[in-house]
Amino acid sequence: MAKVYLYSEIANGIAFQIRNGVLKAGEKLPSVRMLCREHGVSMNTAKRIFLELEAQSLIESKPQSGYFVSKLLQQKLSLPDISRPSLIANDKEPNELITKVYAKMGRDDLTLFSIGVPSGNLLPLAKLKKEILHAIRELKEGGTEYEPLQGNVKLRRMIAVRSLTWGGNLNENDLITTSGGMNALSFCLMALGKPGDTVAVESPCYSGILQLAISLGLKVLELPTHPITGIEIDALKKVIPKINLCLLVPNFNTPLGSCMPDEHKKEVVELLAKHGVPLIEDDIYGDLYFGSQRPKCCKSFDKEDNVLWCSSVSKTLAPGYRVGWIAPGKHKEKLLKLKFVHSISSASIIQEAVGNFLKTGRYENHLHHLRSALKSNYQNYIHTIAEYFPVDTKVSRPQGGLALWVEFNKDIDTIKLYDLAIKKNISISPGRMFTLQNQFENCMRLCIGLPWSDDLKFKLKQLGNLAKMIS
Amino acid sequence: MAKVYLYSEIANGIAFQIRNGVLKAGEKLPSVRMLCREHGVSMNTAKRIFLELEAQSLIESKPQSGYFVSKLLQQKLSLPDISRPSLIANDKEPNELITKVYAKMGRDDLTLFSIGVPSGNLLPLAKLKKEILHAIRELKEGGTEYEPLQGNVKLRRMIAVRSLTWGGNLNENDLITTSGGMNALSFCLMALGKPGDTVAVESPCYSGILQLAISLGLKVLELPTHPITGIEIDALKKVIPKINLCLLVPNFNTPLGSCMPDEHKKEVVELLAKHGVPLIEDDIYGDLYFGSQRPKCCKSFDKEDNVLWCSSVSKTLAPGYRVGWIAPGKHKEKLLKLKFVHSISSASIIQEAVGNFLKTGRYENHLHHLRSALKSNYQNYIHTIAEYFPVDTKVSRPQGGLALWVEFNKDIDTIKLYDLAIKKNISISPGRMFTLQNQFENCMRLCIGLPWSDDLKFKLKQLGNLAKMIS
Repeated sequence: MAKVYLYSEIANGIAFQIRNGVLKAGEKLPSVRMLCREHGVSMNTAKRIFLELEAQSLIESKPQSGYFVSKLLQQKLSLPDISRPSLIANDKEPNELITKVYAKMGRDDLTLFSIGVPSGNLLPLAKLKKEILHAIRELKEGGTEYEPLQGNVKLRRMIAVRSLTWGGNLNENDLITTSGGMNALSFCLMALGKPGDTVAVESPCYSGILQLAISLGLKVLELPTHPITGIEIDALKKVIPKINLCLLVPNFNTPLGSCMPDEHKKEVVELLAKHGVPLIEDDIYGDLYFGSQRPKCCKSFDKEDNVLWCSSVSKTLAPGYRVGWIAPGKHKEKLLKLKFVHSISSASIIQEAVGNFLKTGRYENHLHHLRSALKSNYQNYIHTIAEYFPVDTKVSRPQGGLALWVEFNKDIDTIKLYDLAIKKNISISPGRMFTLQNQFENCMRLCIGLPWSDDLKFKLKQLGNLAKMIS
Repeated sequence: MAKVYLYSEIANGIAFQIRNGVLKAGEKLPSVRMLCREHGVSMNTAKRIFLELEAQSLIESKPQSGYFVSKLLQQKLSLPDISRPSLIANDKEPNELITKVYAKMGRDDLTLFSIGVPSGNLLPLAKLKKEILHAIRELKEGGTEYEPLQGNVKLRRMIAVRSLTWGGNLNENDLITTSGGMNALSFCLMALGKPGDTVAVESPCYSGILQLAISLGLKVLELPTHPITGIEIDALKKVIPKINLCLLVPNFNTPLGSCMPDEHKKEVVELLAKHGVPLIEDDIYGDLYFGSQRPKCCKSFDKEDNVLWCSSVSKTLAPGYRVGWIAPGKHKEKLLKLKFVHSISSASIIQEAVGNFLKTGRYENHLHHLRSALKSNYQNYIHTIAEYFPVDTKVSRPQGGLALWVEFNKDIDTIKLYDLAIKKNISISPGRMFTLQNQFENCMRLCIGLPWSDDLKFKLKQLGNLAKMIS
């Protein structure tokens, strides 16, 4: 298990009060000295607490005056509401909007707020090229041979080593590599679900997960989800007799950006294990935290071997490489067979290159820079939205990841906004993409992985103006 | 449509007589002059006919004496029997032997007669490396971006251009790329079949296809198959009301190596179209012909848009690259959606590299060398088997591809042979891997993609001795 530091615990407590409005935007915080006394900690620890909260954009320091709750959280930009989907399993075809929006992928002439990946200039392109070179030189037969079925051993070893950062304690034999994260989820759902089964997911939920589940003949039950803390556990308790599987993105999911607190993760893992409902955990955003510590995973609390932990490098290193993985626990043999049957093996060269990149420690360095860039983007987006969007706009406050969830007032139909925006070469993801029900008509997802620039700010402003126009 | 030349038609007629024993091993053929008179063709055409038959190892020239039916076809090595599976759809789990045999993949200490790929020293490794280098230099963001969903356009264009060699007349928009050939078949079966449906296949059938079908909840109906001409059309006619799909490998399938004559392909395509049964055509071996002309595909005769043509470079260029494709015809939208849902996109760098390799024309040159090597291997295997295997051994006579099918007398159990051989570091594929029924217990598949050497000959001899020991 990863160690939880005292400073981190206290900081989380204050963060929680800020996010829930107990501490209001602009309000002054106690001084460093007062914090020491209140919690019985050293000056150093108290300072670290403020630094952590500042790192999370929750507080701002004013010279000579101390710390204040960040204006980013002012009334004007309140949090989106907890989603309230109907708790009935659904097997409707996902909205065809999804195809329309994704057809724009790769279009240079558009500002793609719609595609949830980090932009190329946030990625270590030169170093990755070197690793590809290295791979074709070092691999037997230049990488033209089939890899071992379970996947490149260096890659698996490094994923296992990195699992220590979130309390995973995996070893290389616990892992199977796949062609990206969706491929990992697809194998898990195929292994554990059968047509007619019901899978519970967050709501709003990534459109690809909805499409995947429906394409495999599963029914989807959308769970009420809080923008900060993730799924509502009481709702899960209520529906648990009706579900066969649960697929969650507990850390900085898209589009909402929520991150389940440790105690929620623990409770959900125990609840699902008790009822024999396997949990497929998609952790592709877990390394993209804005704070100082990587969040744990549900897998960290998995005493009953009931969690299949999936991730990839698509959101952190190279979307186009298609490198993902699964820690399937007791389902390993089943998953290995599925991988063989549907794809024989993964692409040797790419996996070797990523394995080596992870090995050198350069990955940590890169992640550090990427996280800073995303966090700074996040702050810029929030400021710009506060300035130019309709006054009653609500915005999520993700503490990591690549997405912002924007909720307009009920009069603003984001499908209409999409059509208007695309004429100005701006692409967004309307809220209807993230549900099989009739909800989120006034919501949209914005990707924060684009490099910040005056032009990007202008595009956001344009988007805000369009929203005002139709409200 | 590819033009059928007169010489090729006449050569096919003679080839058919040789393979069916009308012309016996060692028998003298008519002279060039006589052939001219008999068929009313020119001397050049007649000479070309003999060259074609010689290229197919069917005849041998003796100085001063003319052409004779090849000794390769002598009595001692007769053809395996037509398979006679029961015509009942099956949903049994495939034999677990498959896992055991494939677990040996990549083992350097073994002679892997069991894995059906060309060995690395038959592949253009240096040129492929250069193409990978080129790809990471030329691709936007070094290939870290998602590709367009349909796949690399250069690659699709070159596959389309090459389709002219078999009468395909495809264009780049007709094609979707995949992560290898099995991935292509998997998407086709998912798109067109639903659990409980029945798919008709050749018998013996590649073990991976059996596993894939069963894993998707399909039933498998194995069709009687002739070692030279492929499936028995009368059997297909009989079962056609009972099947929902047909998946064939009409050109040099594994393990049998049969190649359906054009008129069979045409008849099967028309029959299936008439009954509304889609045909998934797996053409991964089509470019590996030993003769002078590439065989056509079922897709060449597909007037009703009922054939989904699939292939890959796994058997010709680089197994470990995982590059395959589908020409799905009217099912394109459905297949695109499946590809997106299960994998988002293919690995950008690898597809670009293969696309460029195909573009330069070096691929044709490479294929020419590969085909010569495989044909020469084939002849060496046949000679060695004739010399060292039990006298009543039967062997297939593929005119292309990577596999030999060996049928021993009924007393030789190839699972027993596998266990004995593996102790001598030799791996084979027992016949039971290629069926869901109780058949082929006395058969095995040998891959001819290994580089010929004294050591390989010695291993084959050892295998023959082991077979004699247990007979």
